[in-house]
Amino acid sequence: MKLLIVGSVAYDTVKTPFGRRERILGGSATYCSVAASYFTDVAVLAVVGEDFREEDRAVFEEHGIDTRGLRMHPGGKTFHWQGEYGYDLNEAHTLKTDLNVLGAFEPELPESLRDIPYLFLANVDPRSQLRVIEQCRKPKIIAADTMNFWIDNRRKDLMEVLSRIQLLLINEGEARQLSQEFNLVRAARKILSWGPKMLIIKRGEYGVLKVTPNDIFATPAYPLESVFDPTGAGDSFAGGFMGHLAVSDSLSADHIRHAIVMGNVLASFNVEDFSLGRLGSLKKEDIENRYQAFRRLTQFGEA
Amino acid sequence: MKLLIVGSVAYDTVKTPFGRRERILGGSATYCSVAASYFTDVAVLAVVGEDFREEDRAVFEEHGIDTRGLRMHPGGKTFHWQGEYGYDLNEAHTLKTDLNVLGAFEPELPESLRDIPYLFLANVDPRSQLRVIEQCRKPKIIAADTMNFWIDNRRKDLMEVLSRIQLLLINEGEARQLSQEFNLVRAARKILSWGPKMLIIKRGEYGVLKVTPNDIFATPAYPLESVFDPTGAGDSFAGGFMGHLAVSDSLSADHIRHAIVMGNVLASFNVEDFSLGRLGSLKKEDIENRYQAFRRLTQFGEA
Repeated sequence: MKLLIVGSVAYDTVKTPFGRRERILGGSATYCSVAASYFTDVAVLAVVGEDFREEDRAVFEEHGIDTRGLRMHPGGKTFHWQGEYGYDLNEAHTLKTDLNVLGAFEPELPESLRDIPYLFLANVDPRSQLRVIEQCRKPKIIAADTMNFWIDNRRKDLMEVLSRIQLLLINEGEARQLSQEFNLVRAARKILSWGPKMLIIKRGEYGVLKVTPNDIFATPAYPLESVFDPTGAGDSFAGGFMGHLAVSDSLSADHIRHAIVMGNVLASFNVEDFSLGRLGSLKKEDIENRYQAFRRLTQFGEA
Repeated sequence: MKLLIVGSVAYDTVKTPFGRRERILGGSATYCSVAASYFTDVAVLAVVGEDFREEDRAVFEEHGIDTRGLRMHPGGKTFHWQGEYGYDLNEAHTLKTDLNVLGAFEPELPESLRDIPYLFLANVDPRSQLRVIEQCRKPKIIAADTMNFWIDNRRKDLMEVLSRIQLLLINEGEARQLSQEFNLVRAARKILSWGPKMLIIKRGEYGVLKVTPNDIFATPAYPLESVFDPTGAGDSFAGGFMGHLAVSDSLSADHIRHAIVMGNVLASFNVEDFSLGRLGSLKKEDIENRYQAFRRLTQFGEA
């Protein structure tokens, strides 16, 4: 099944203990759609500015991503994020956010993209997320991400989003902030009572926790000797997860687990280099091998 | 195989967001030996004061623990620790440490305990750990824990300990502090180069990472809806782990994985109540059921 990803396409200026890069291709829709493209047909809905480079548009096309929804906003500049990480790569310190064309982003879904059955709404204003939901004619599965800013400042709209989606993917701190519960299992139960059938809690280098009313699944993250840049890890996770889900077209507990591990696999590649340095050039067997490595990392038998 | 546990027996005064308890039975050797007693024959080597209650000594005996090495120091008082936890139960805030009889603890292994093949040296002064190692005649497996204070203040003795043990069990922060490496995989490789064949890194609510030269195993912790008191979780983990290892008497990668999960299982019970409230009254089927729950929590198939 085809997957539509709505989010940001950005230029990032990133500093980590291992290097610095200026205005490299980034953004939630970028990481997510490239990760998902290894599994299923993907379309992207995002806005860029006049400064958006031809070679960066080509990256999407090389991955077979449908870019009819990747619109250029005349007279504007592409969203720019500047941040840095210390040795604790779990936490980004934002130095600068130039919203540019993203500030006035009113997503308008081209007619040709309105029947896509799988929908992932990356972290954008909940009002934009609702607007997209209303434009989709036959959504089968809607998943969304969000962030602390929207939890604080758009709570009412966000609650409306929650009532209309099946899957919510957020990080640990956001789950606590949204639910006002410190214990994650309680936090998850409360959030599930607001609409979503499933909550995926991203815990950075500690992995992922999935909670549904009847099942909890936990995986660690893949322990890497060299992590270069964690930017986009959560979005790559979402892409691998949603891509695998869309292609298997099943929400069975087993398929969900496979999809979560695929999300981990894609995120683990993403952090091995800046931008799409590693994520953008994967082979089928790279993904398969790391999935197997993930099984060796985590599996155990009867005592 | 029989397991000898060397560590502290303490009275703890603990406050968590869920309650407060005064002078309850605690200490690394207590949690560890009770957890291990569900799997194998256990002997304990520790010192207590004149104030040590008969009912607390009885706890060890009810679990079939050999207390010939649990010595009372005349004229002294039992080690007392006072601490509290906020909602982030991963971090204890120590309010008071009265070493009392532990300050002058010079472990002297009774003749009858010198041939025990499995040895766990909980977190005590590395000089005491070395003293015990020298008193053991036929150690087959020696495992040890340590803490930030000894890493800072007894580094030379600790390095000598590392050269004489097979397994080191420490927490994430200690692994970084000891190795001076932030990345945990690098940290583990460096520590393994100093002697131990295996490093077990405890990550609190995030689980456990095991690193040997040829294998990495990662498990999450069991996600609980009610965590009452995390005191002793690491020691309960060590007890379940070492107890299962001693009874299977094998260091095969599979047995190590089972033992780590058993450690997680015992730790998950421990945090459900203060002191030995839950850990002290487990049935065989409680342990088996949670081991199975752990499999359901973490296992997944081929994609």
